[in-house]
Amino acid sequence: MFVSFEGIDGSGKTTQAELLVKRLADEGRDVLALREPGGTELGERIRELLLDGPAMSPWAEASLFAAARAELVAEVIRPAIDRGAVVVCDRYVDSSLAYQGVARGLGVERVLELNLAATGGLLPDRTFVLLLAPKDARRTTNDRIEREDAEFVRRVDDGYRRLVTMFPERCVAIDASRAPDAIAEEVRRELA
Amino acid sequence: MFVSFEGIDGSGKTTQAELLVKRLADEGRDVLALREPGGTELGERIRELLLDGPAMSPWAEASLFAAARAELVAEVIRPAIDRGAVVVCDRYVDSSLAYQGVARGLGVERVLELNLAATGGLLPDRTFVLLLAPKDARRTTNDRIEREDAEFVRRVDDGYRRLVTMFPERCVAIDASRAPDAIAEEVRRELA
Repeated sequence: MFVSFEGIDGSGKTTQAELLVKRLADEGRDVLALREPGGTELGERIRELLLDGPAMSPWAEASLFAAARAELVAEVIRPAIDRGAVVVCDRYVDSSLAYQGVARGLGVERVLELNLAATGGLLPDRTFVLLLAPKDARRTTNDRIEREDAEFVRRVDDGYRRLVTMFPERCVAIDASRAPDAIAEEVRRELA
Repeated sequence: MFVSFEGIDGSGKTTQAELLVKRLADEGRDVLALREPGGTELGERIRELLLDGPAMSPWAEASLFAAARAELVAEVIRPAIDRGAVVVCDRYVDSSLAYQGVARGLGVERVLELNLAATGGLLPDRTFVLLLAPKDARRTTNDRIEREDAEFVRRVDDGYRRLVTMFPERCVAIDASRAPDAIAEEVRRELA
């Protein structure tokens, strides 16, 4: 099983990914926690470029995320799925769809094509999209992308709300304004 | 006008690109010489990763080339074309088609799609493909990709020969076993 958590920075997705990983590990499951971009030597090098590198065009940014993701899938995610582990990913393809596809205006379909090529078509079985009004987000980072202005974050939020509608079989909309325990309980029920 | 030179390492394409740039400059043309991957701050950082970075999967490699290319197009090539300059590129999309699409087995069509997305569909007006039997190539580099074995170089050569057939309007097959001056003269005639 392959599960991803998505949402704007400060939506609480990292907390939820960690809570799920802890619960599954406590249950004795073989579970692998990953964050994007990163998780491989190449991915960490690309992460540095993406978060604190030089200015770049939107398609260069989208292609770099796809490159890091291609390596993560080939080196880590596919082998883990093949051995029967549960993979929990803090951000995956939907981050590219929301940030580059919608907020940067590249188009969801074209960015999805790029990512399906790069990952060999691997999408999560379930994606939890933590929806939270940008004004309520507790921003935790200050990298090149997150330094974008409030209007950019509003477009990312809009992007995530669209993705939930576009991919209803895979994406589960989560009201992220509630307490972490309540959200974790909803995630547990959805996966049961 | 946008012209690219392609071929296996040691085929003489860099020499021909330089000869063309010199001739156009001598004629007083506004000409821009580029090499791939590179040509931008981001591109040079990606070049380091590609040529001497960690092991990577074929799709990660293809996506990194596409990212460097996206930035080169956005920052350098499109502005140069827009001001009326002649752009001469030592390697461009066809390198990805031959190396990743054919020699790494990813498929020409899928790698082309990735690159059309990344570059906004920008292809050269003319691409000179320098064809030379791998045994006659004068190898000049020893990076991660060129360290591949003779069988890999043979597949790249095969890829270039296929591209000439697939894109007859754009790609010009050049017999690279001849003297540099004779080749330069053929390039001149083709562009006239």
